[in-house]
Amino acid sequence: MKIALAQLNYRIGDFELNTSKMYEAITEAKSQGADLVVFSELSVCGYPPDDLLDYEWFVEKCEQSMEAIAQSCQGIAAVVGGVMRNRDKGRGLFNVSCFLQNGRIEHVVRKTLLPTYDVFSESRYFEPADACQIFEFKGVKIGIAICEDIWDVYNEFLYEKSPLQHLKNEGAQLIIHPSASPFNVGKIRMRDKVFSGNIERFGLPIVYVNQVGANADLIFDGDSQVINADGKTVKQLPLFEEKVDYITFGKNDFLGVPVHFSEPEETALMHDAIVYGIRDYCKKSGFRKIILGSSGGIDSALVQALACKAVGPENVLALLMPSPYSSEGSVNDAKQLSINLGNDFRIVPISDIFSTYLNTLQPAFEKLPQDITEENLQARIRANLLMAMSNKMGYLLLNTSNKSEMSVGYSTLYGDMCGGLSPIGDVWKTKVYGLARYINRDNEIIPNAILIKAPSAELRPGQKDTDSLPEYAILDEILHWYVEERRSREEIKAQGYDSAMVDKIINMVNRAEYKRFQSPPILRVTSKAFGRGRQMPLVAFHG
Amino acid sequence: MKIALAQLNYRIGDFELNTSKMYEAITEAKSQGADLVVFSELSVCGYPPDDLLDYEWFVEKCEQSMEAIAQSCQGIAAVVGGVMRNRDKGRGLFNVSCFLQNGRIEHVVRKTLLPTYDVFSESRYFEPADACQIFEFKGVKIGIAICEDIWDVYNEFLYEKSPLQHLKNEGAQLIIHPSASPFNVGKIRMRDKVFSGNIERFGLPIVYVNQVGANADLIFDGDSQVINADGKTVKQLPLFEEKVDYITFGKNDFLGVPVHFSEPEETALMHDAIVYGIRDYCKKSGFRKIILGSSGGIDSALVQALACKAVGPENVLALLMPSPYSSEGSVNDAKQLSINLGNDFRIVPISDIFSTYLNTLQPAFEKLPQDITEENLQARIRANLLMAMSNKMGYLLLNTSNKSEMSVGYSTLYGDMCGGLSPIGDVWKTKVYGLARYINRDNEIIPNAILIKAPSAELRPGQKDTDSLPEYAILDEILHWYVEERRSREEIKAQGYDSAMVDKIINMVNRAEYKRFQSPPILRVTSKAFGRGRQMPLVAFHG
Repeated sequence: MKIALAQLNYRIGDFELNTSKMYEAITEAKSQGADLVVFSELSVCGYPPDDLLDYEWFVEKCEQSMEAIAQSCQGIAAVVGGVMRNRDKGRGLFNVSCFLQNGRIEHVVRKTLLPTYDVFSESRYFEPADACQIFEFKGVKIGIAICEDIWDVYNEFLYEKSPLQHLKNEGAQLIIHPSASPFNVGKIRMRDKVFSGNIERFGLPIVYVNQVGANADLIFDGDSQVINADGKTVKQLPLFEEKVDYITFGKNDFLGVPVHFSEPEETALMHDAIVYGIRDYCKKSGFRKIILGSSGGIDSALVQALACKAVGPENVLALLMPSPYSSEGSVNDAKQLSINLGNDFRIVPISDIFSTYLNTLQPAFEKLPQDITEENLQARIRANLLMAMSNKMGYLLLNTSNKSEMSVGYSTLYGDMCGGLSPIGDVWKTKVYGLARYINRDNEIIPNAILIKAPSAELRPGQKDTDSLPEYAILDEILHWYVEERRSREEIKAQGYDSAMVDKIINMVNRAEYKRFQSPPILRVTSKAFGRGRQMPLVAFHG
Repeated sequence: MKIALAQLNYRIGDFELNTSKMYEAITEAKSQGADLVVFSELSVCGYPPDDLLDYEWFVEKCEQSMEAIAQSCQGIAAVVGGVMRNRDKGRGLFNVSCFLQNGRIEHVVRKTLLPTYDVFSESRYFEPADACQIFEFKGVKIGIAICEDIWDVYNEFLYEKSPLQHLKNEGAQLIIHPSASPFNVGKIRMRDKVFSGNIERFGLPIVYVNQVGANADLIFDGDSQVINADGKTVKQLPLFEEKVDYITFGKNDFLGVPVHFSEPEETALMHDAIVYGIRDYCKKSGFRKIILGSSGGIDSALVQALACKAVGPENVLALLMPSPYSSEGSVNDAKQLSINLGNDFRIVPISDIFSTYLNTLQPAFEKLPQDITEENLQARIRANLLMAMSNKMGYLLLNTSNKSEMSVGYSTLYGDMCGGLSPIGDVWKTKVYGLARYINRDNEIIPNAILIKAPSAELRPGQKDTDSLPEYAILDEILHWYVEERRSREEIKAQGYDSAMVDKIINMVNRAEYKRFQSPPILRVTSKAFGRGRQMPLVAFHG
């Protein structure tokens, strides 16, 4: 049996686009002599459809698409992901993968394990399957396990049921595993563990098909693959790329020799994911061009380089907006960066606007001393200029905040927190440097001066980030333990960090929830990003 | 048996505050000769704790608080809401209400039905109960049903289990019903239906205890009450107010005559809810004073009046920020409003700042014609001035956008969409007028000129909202069907609305998802508000 793995980029709710992509893959697979094409989870509508599932018309479109694709399955079979209505009690829908053949839906397989943690909220929409059946095709007993259905190996305490155990008991010889598995650093290794854990337990070969593409915050990396009964990967599709590829299932197992997939190094992977995330956001939201504020600092320099990689330097405009407190070095560094990258740049000084604001506000400020207000004002003037250019020219504004700043609130709401998308809001400052060095791996694209200068917002004379924050190496560790690993103050202090510093940082994180609530969507590249995967109360007391 | 209903306002995560409030209620109830005090759902930590439940220390604090309160239950019993760990497979926690007596936890009752729709996401954290037991106290067989546990009457297709049926079968004579039931218009009637539906089916008297207080977006109205076996309400606690009150359970039913609770009229209720929401947000986030932009339009006038009601006019500052396009009438109306309300106001014209921006941007704008850019710029200058004053003086900025604008995106991101809280972001423009008339019910607080003028953003000469939008009466209807009732284009058109207009409006709603993603938390007063209860994809195609 020749099986096609169709790793495609779906647009959520674009049924015409999605089905036409699937028709094309089916036609192509048929011409290659394939017997079966496998598509990813919820492929008819794209993943995650979120509350569009609450709309009747959306569910109808899902059902109609499934019917339409079924009709095109003549002389070839397909496994297609979609939703079906639950006519009994319980939530109104099932997350299904259908086996299509002879112009009709021959088997409907419902998802059993519904992830409802971090970025997932499937229990919001779907009723779990009671039991999963196997079916026979070309003499092979096939079981379908949708995404989380095989993750009880990893989340060993979360689920009572084991769909794969059940399919094994039913006599399955081959597992088809349609998924919608978002990327984060470490996810490829985690999937490997899940595959090998399942094969160790059940000895069943697996065809894993994931989607690619980015849906605002969530990036899907693909990484579709075929694992034989010995646990060896005998086919692996590229990351971040649409691809249809083939494998042959012999009498009891896949034919083919183990492939040597060398997983990209963590920084390279993060780089590729972010570039892909920016590019696909532009494509899906209809932007051709990008604008951003270029301060001469490391964060904006990195985002600028990533943006140029994503859409080409000819589509990137850098706005340099020096204030009275900007160092000359910063402006020159920012200029040099644009020259090195080959993107257009403009210098728009904010001094006149800043002083007009101060004059206008003088009576209202009632002679109160300068404070954070004047710093925030500069950041917000820059945001206004960027948004004005974005509006006038139709550019997408990219946000340039990193995860460390987002965490402690060292950023100005409606100022440097502006943007349609935040590419590095899930990247710690220390990793920002790593990414910058990666971009410079062959030649100096980001001027070295930017890499070596002490981080500063340059919003008052001589300001340095370390005036109010510890060194980023320490800060990022503490933040990692608190935000990503969800440890308590006491546990973090017990690791030897200064007690007052830990308290200060944790208090800053908690106080900044209201800012993050209004932040742009952040490209998720770690296992715990700000955004949908971390829902915190706004007026809580954090002890 | 004398039962105390403790309707309290908890602060999420403030275990010290919450337990001390409960101690106090227990002491008070004991002095009144009560046998049992009933507290609301998750009372130890406040509802909803969201992802704070992912923190081990938070769960420990919940458990410790429960133990501590148990110890104080000497000579009196209490039903207290909290969380407990699940030691078996499944989600890590249970949502429980404990029966405390003799200094210890005597019974732990787990919640069975876990709402995971709209603003609720309990399946994210909790494992449902398998079965619920009854227990005996003072000769009465008591069953505890936590919040949603009795809502299978209303959500009749959603749940297979009926906890109340089970408790009835076990021989329960009395139902204790601790809840955390957020307010929306129509909710009081909906609860009545649920109570009477349950009593019709099972004939069991119910003690319902809800929390009060607002946790950012969600407002809890209380409305705690006692319904006897005949379905009559024999005790009802006030709305939006902390209160401990008492009722006596006789041999088989509650003693006491039916109370005549006159439910406030819808507009009055919405008014009270929003005022309460603003007040509690200030209290819980530590703000004493409020600032807002006062344009002379109906939306900001309403928010200003609500703010004065919430925190007192002496704590409200209105900023009047006329532009070259502001009518003189608008400025005078805004002045008059502040005079009527008795709050402080300041006039800060934006013309100088606006022209400095235009001068600065002139080279970059490359002689492109005026467009929406210049309109947005004015809105964003105002936001900067408001945020500068907010920063300098420590005021909370209130947003003044209504639900109609939020829906179609007729608002400027980082401009009039700014604010720490949106009081009327869930109020249709037509209801905005209703609320304004309600505020003027006794005398003209909001100048009549503001009520009768044609709505305009006044961002270009002669601009009217109806230039780009239909009359609000029509717009709000269409938006209601699309946003709140989730009807399709076709269904809405079939009601007789102009087809092109429906398409235009729905497209505007869909295109504005990216704006709403960055909007402030919105006080929820309808059954479908923007925010946590409506999670839409950002780069979807909506057909």
